[in-house]
Amino acid sequence: MIETPYLLFLGDAPDPLAAKVAQGIRDWRPDNAVGQYRMEGCKADLGLPDMTLAEAKAAGAKTLVIGVANRGGVISAAWKKVLVAALEEGFDLASGLHNLLRDEEDLSAVARATGRVLHDVRVPSVKYPIADGKPRAGKRLLAVGTDCSVGKMYTTLAMDAEMKNRGMKSSFRATGQTGILITGDGVPLDAVVADFMAGSIEWLTPENDPDHWDVIEGQGSLFHISYSGVTLALIHGGAPDALVLCHEPTRPHLRGLPDHPVPSLEALRDLSLTMARVANDRAEVVGVSVNTQHLSEDEARSYCAEVEARMGLPTVDPFRHGAGRLVDALAGL
Amino acid sequence: MIETPYLLFLGDAPDPLAAKVAQGIRDWRPDNAVGQYRMEGCKADLGLPDMTLAEAKAAGAKTLVIGVANRGGVISAAWKKVLVAALEEGFDLASGLHNLLRDEEDLSAVARATGRVLHDVRVPSVKYPIADGKPRAGKRLLAVGTDCSVGKMYTTLAMDAEMKNRGMKSSFRATGQTGILITGDGVPLDAVVADFMAGSIEWLTPENDPDHWDVIEGQGSLFHISYSGVTLALIHGGAPDALVLCHEPTRPHLRGLPDHPVPSLEALRDLSLTMARVANDRAEVVGVSVNTQHLSEDEARSYCAEVEARMGLPTVDPFRHGAGRLVDALAGL
Repeated sequence: MIETPYLLFLGDAPDPLAAKVAQGIRDWRPDNAVGQYRMEGCKADLGLPDMTLAEAKAAGAKTLVIGVANRGGVISAAWKKVLVAALEEGFDLASGLHNLLRDEEDLSAVARATGRVLHDVRVPSVKYPIADGKPRAGKRLLAVGTDCSVGKMYTTLAMDAEMKNRGMKSSFRATGQTGILITGDGVPLDAVVADFMAGSIEWLTPENDPDHWDVIEGQGSLFHISYSGVTLALIHGGAPDALVLCHEPTRPHLRGLPDHPVPSLEALRDLSLTMARVANDRAEVVGVSVNTQHLSEDEARSYCAEVEARMGLPTVDPFRHGAGRLVDALAGL
Repeated sequence: MIETPYLLFLGDAPDPLAAKVAQGIRDWRPDNAVGQYRMEGCKADLGLPDMTLAEAKAAGAKTLVIGVANRGGVISAAWKKVLVAALEEGFDLASGLHNLLRDEEDLSAVARATGRVLHDVRVPSVKYPIADGKPRAGKRLLAVGTDCSVGKMYTTLAMDAEMKNRGMKSSFRATGQTGILITGDGVPLDAVVADFMAGSIEWLTPENDPDHWDVIEGQGSLFHISYSGVTLALIHGGAPDALVLCHEPTRPHLRGLPDHPVPSLEALRDLSLTMARVANDRAEVVGVSVNTQHLSEDEARSYCAEVEARMGLPTVDPFRHGAGRLVDALAGL
């Protein structure tokens, strides 16, 4: 759908976290990223060659992907200058921003005049059905978190990669804009109309070979009141056989909700399992994925060991320790 | 907003339940309903005078309200014939259907030509915020159900009416098309974009007097996989102090989901309370509302008595027994 390879636009990213879309593409589809485009003051660096538009064009790049979040939800004049130049240079544009490229009159006009395509991957392009809850062949895994942004996408991408390495049948199923930009396909769940949320996930994970795994990217958290409905639609539409619990142990409170404490992994396990079994009575929690980026190597190892002993579940940080033990845990299912 | 009184269009309703929109208007705003319009094969009957368009016009009706659901999401040619004739006759049209009147080229064209208005109450007319989970003054009650269409709207309308009769401060908060058609205001939650669901309910139930009750219409069920995400957004956005459990005891399975059994009231109580306390740790279950329409008077009485003894909660069918005991149960909160 989106022409590859990409030039990754990092804009004026205020910090590396703001460029997590670009980082995800670079980590999981490095062959798709020929270079990075950074503006003055950019605080992110993917370690890719810095390229001008002309250099990237010469290197074969087809699409400029906006790999950075925009401040205040506005596409700034400084960004526009680059985006318009990219269209003139012959690039398509792809974006997962809330405010759409197609809603910007100047970008639309230049895209029409140059015959280039604006991909707004946040906007559903499919008329999804209402979920019917019918059992379907194939196996499904879903990442659920104690909070938003704790590593659910990373965990499922890492598991999918490990499963493919082992020759298992596996498909990463993207449910957010980053995952869609990485894989070129998926459901932008947070932009789907309420009634069709669960149906969109059934659509995304259709009947398949009995030994095929859909590895579904999680969203939000059952405990995060802003987005919990999205999470539950994902659990009930995906009807997972396997759940992986995701956690970031240093958060003072839920992201964006200062009045709301982070729940325990035990609370997440119990509530997720109860909810998953409404849709699939074979659902099991198979492991724990800890995002230890704010811990030292030793702290990370001992934290994971402590959780593993306490909960009786394989516990790793897939970034540090690999996803092998989480994939091992699927053997019995 | 919508001109009254109404002629209620029942179409070719396959069963009485399909006409619940019309039934709700007839029950709660009888003065607004001058008659019903039924097509051949209609299996619903509100006990209102059957009228032709001309008869209803002569009786003073201003708006033809589509009071019946069309599963499959298509406005049929047979319906169109009546709707076009109604516009020609001088009626406005009002609808809560998923597929919009305004999206039908012929209806739009005839409405323009005749100067009539098409009201699509299902379409959000507000840009809702993302929920912030901040505590706010005032009290809130929410109806939750073991299934869809078990009487949640009826229960909350009855409680609101009873509370107003007693001089309590109370506002019925509509979250679906029927409630909106009845009261002229509310959030069409199932048509809200996923990320803004909980925020729309915070918006609908803002800070208020400490002794004011928002009586919030429920939607779906935590156990109904097609719509459970909508239900959870309602629980977390509404952050209710009081929950009323709603149940219809004769269902063979969840509505539209033949593979899914109806959960017990105990399961509903436990899961709803767990979920509600994520948002509001003072949440309590205060009573049970049973829809006994398929039971005899004796069966209804003994069923409610059995549930009341088993669960230790006031249990009534508000249609048969009034909502007084459910309102009594709010006294301590």
